[in-house]
Amino acid sequence: MSDLPKSVHITEEGPREGFQIEKGPIATARKIALIDALSQTGLDRIQIVSFVNPKAVPGMVDADEVVRGITPHAGVAYTALWLNTKGFERAMEFSDRLANTGTIQLSASEKFSLRNQNRNAAQQLAEQHAIVESYKAAGVAVERGSIMAAFGCNFEGDIPASHIVALVAQILDVAREHSVTLKYITLADTMAWATPLAIKRVVGSLRERWPKLDVALHLHDTRGMAIANAYAGLEMGVMRFDSSVAGLGGCPFAGHQGAAGNVCTEDLVFMCDELGIETGIELDALIECARLAEEVVGHPLPGSVMKGGTLKRFRK
Amino acid sequence: MSDLPKSVHITEEGPREGFQIEKGPIATARKIALIDALSQTGLDRIQIVSFVNPKAVPGMVDADEVVRGITPHAGVAYTALWLNTKGFERAMEFSDRLANTGTIQLSASEKFSLRNQNRNAAQQLAEQHAIVESYKAAGVAVERGSIMAAFGCNFEGDIPASHIVALVAQILDVAREHSVTLKYITLADTMAWATPLAIKRVVGSLRERWPKLDVALHLHDTRGMAIANAYAGLEMGVMRFDSSVAGLGGCPFAGHQGAAGNVCTEDLVFMCDELGIETGIELDALIECARLAEEVVGHPLPGSVMKGGTLKRFRK
Repeated sequence: MSDLPKSVHITEEGPREGFQIEKGPIATARKIALIDALSQTGLDRIQIVSFVNPKAVPGMVDADEVVRGITPHAGVAYTALWLNTKGFERAMEFSDRLANTGTIQLSASEKFSLRNQNRNAAQQLAEQHAIVESYKAAGVAVERGSIMAAFGCNFEGDIPASHIVALVAQILDVAREHSVTLKYITLADTMAWATPLAIKRVVGSLRERWPKLDVALHLHDTRGMAIANAYAGLEMGVMRFDSSVAGLGGCPFAGHQGAAGNVCTEDLVFMCDELGIETGIELDALIECARLAEEVVGHPLPGSVMKGGTLKRFRK
Repeated sequence: MSDLPKSVHITEEGPREGFQIEKGPIATARKIALIDALSQTGLDRIQIVSFVNPKAVPGMVDADEVVRGITPHAGVAYTALWLNTKGFERAMEFSDRLANTGTIQLSASEKFSLRNQNRNAAQQLAEQHAIVESYKAAGVAVERGSIMAAFGCNFEGDIPASHIVALVAQILDVAREHSVTLKYITLADTMAWATPLAIKRVVGSLRERWPKLDVALHLHDTRGMAIANAYAGLEMGVMRFDSSVAGLGGCPFAGHQGAAGNVCTEDLVFMCDELGIETGIELDALIECARLAEEVVGHPLPGSVMKGGTLKRFRK
């Protein structure tokens, strides 16, 4: 009936996703408090900031202070996001605190990359060669491939599974040319086009070509499909997910434009617990973090299990 | 990979679920406006009130006025909920406007029925015989079997699939003894214990015994699993769902106790549209109803697609 994995690996992206989109200024100490609380839950990878232009992303104006301010917890890899060389250089200044790794990243939508980076598909691919070399020169491991808009794009429309297969082949070629070995490929549902069926189709197509490919899913919940998409991923044996505590990352109640955050971490962990899939994460502690996240941002967040509670107390 | 149906039938329960739980008094005219708007979307079955004691459920104090006030739309069956003879008699006073049909209902949890109805399992079953006879005497068709707490119970814990098979057998026996033919059996996840895997197990167990059994799912979203559970149902060929526009029915923002409404109708319709499954419902019109529902109750509701929008505008 299904190919559920025995365990999954979750990367918490709530701090980075949330703080970069929230309107109100959030005190640096509160951001640090949330990250430190998340560090105590069993999560072993937390993306805490993005090194971007604070004029464009005011919520990241204190990224340096956040990185300096956290209390690193043994066994937790703290990561940062960057979008260009300058951001990467800032991250490297914190290489004592941050687990900086490189990504070979392509967009499944040429229109999206023309719009956002002014590069067509060929230019984007060519650039990845240079990026991998710069990571290697900096002594940074290139561990991950990533495909943005893997399930559809507001500018390009639907993306066929065959195109994702072609892009993964390109990413693996780049890796091979530069003698790096990727651990996994992330499929990002950047604009929330995925359905559970699309997840199964795309992951299934990748598995036909590369039976042992380790796929990660980055699932936005803009249309309420994220948890169903995650379940479809689990049924396809997907063992890696990005997620956001409390569903941090969009703001459904503040007139943003309807984009929502990643699949909610504690809802995902609840589902895994109920399915007997190990996450290594303490659900009750995570729910406390979700409540803290609501306090920190000052408005309700979309996570369900933090409101509805777990089932543990009913099982004696 | 899956057994997705070509079409599904959705029963809208938002008005009944929502108005019975909302704290603030809602003007009768506003309730009627929402029901009338829902009538224009292609929905063909809408549960609009419950005939219950208004001392226990103040939101239903105007149930009579609501039934009298709506503008019946051709092709829409309006239904009511009742819990006892008195409620049934009230519903029958409106048999010109309401599509009153009978249900043979059991709880999967004896503790739940002891607690709520002071009846053990044997008493509950015995009572169904009398209830069917009273429906027949009143000229009301008995069309449905229903099992409450089919996936787990806060008082009893997990419910094994084999127990649901036994209860369906009991329901079918009652129907046979009284020469009524049920159209379908509803499995209600009353306390939101279901996971997609549990949906597949239980529906699968029923299908093994009765390959053509028409199963309906009534899925509460208290732990954020409803849409994933609905998808699991679709993969098992389930063709009937109850749902609530905008996710009406619980109130995640008002300090209730964490219970949430049914799976959100427009999110479910969006998913079906994306999967190529016919619903007969106009998604854009339904989204307008979801926005109206938020206005009517005066606070945000949990539906996603009404905030995130559909994908239609991006496909040219």
